[in-house]
Amino acid sequence: MQTDVFITPAELVEHWQGHRGLTRKLIEKFPETEFFEYSIGGMRPFSKMVQELLAIVVPGIREIANGKTEELNEKIEEANTKANILALWDKATPEINRYWAQICAERFHEKILTFGQYEGTVWSSILYFVDNEIHHRAQGYVYLRSLGIEPPPFWER
Amino acid sequence: MQTDVFITPAELVEHWQGHRGLTRKLIEKFPETEFFEYSIGGMRPFSKMVQELLAIVVPGIREIANGKTEELNEKIEEANTKANILALWDKATPEINRYWAQICAERFHEKILTFGQYEGTVWSSILYFVDNEIHHRAQGYVYLRSLGIEPPPFWER
Repeated sequence: MQTDVFITPAELVEHWQGHRGLTRKLIEKFPETEFFEYSIGGMRPFSKMVQELLAIVVPGIREIANGKTEELNEKIEEANTKANILALWDKATPEINRYWAQICAERFHEKILTFGQYEGTVWSSILYFVDNEIHHRAQGYVYLRSLGIEPPPFWER
Repeated sequence: MQTDVFITPAELVEHWQGHRGLTRKLIEKFPETEFFEYSIGGMRPFSKMVQELLAIVVPGIREIANGKTEELNEKIEEANTKANILALWDKATPEINRYWAQICAERFHEKILTFGQYEGTVWSSILYFVDNEIHHRAQGYVYLRSLGIEPPPFWER
């Protein structure tokens, strides 16, 4: 192990995929109707938050891998049933790993403008993707609890 | 920059303190009574979640820094007003940095049993502390929204 490492790229993507596995379990817990319609305090239904995550993840990593600016498009036409959204989720899983493998380790400390507008480093952009998923998933936890549904434990990845 | 680094220890603690700054803003947004009493779906009030974060953070990092097992004690007597909790929050800020500076970089990849019971590596334990904060803070976002209070933007660190 080199000396100035908190976490390696391989560890980070595995950690992220663990979080994605938990988010998937949460999606599964939602009844179909509530997934698309239930909301608290004027917030979006959980399906819309998940569409945001889907819109960010593969285009975000692909952009980092190949350097071509991507568009942030949260309107995913086929994301109209829970089964379709789970299929999109599963399709993204190997794509993340594939693009990840194309990112040279030195690049994580480069500056980048993700989606043509968000300034940061590559690492800070990726942590934003992960942290944003944890953030919205936790809101899904509150939705489930308020519907009387027990969510999966947070530590279950 | 060395070759197998996603993020360095110095970057991670700065990232974490940025998250802690946002959590502090969220605490400030809560009215005193709702901070201690408001809840959705049988979940804990936000003050209890913040007490969990306070119970984990300094003892968790101190344990990593000096290798002595700490007790997880979520009953913090003086955490009985919002002002007191904010004071405890602010007291933790330099303590995290102080203990962090005592952790040799090689140690982040050691195995550890935090609080005598949770198995992991040092890095996975620390990311658990950070992720757990993002998770509970996001639940505070839903509480605030359902109270009709605009929370600070997620990207404001």
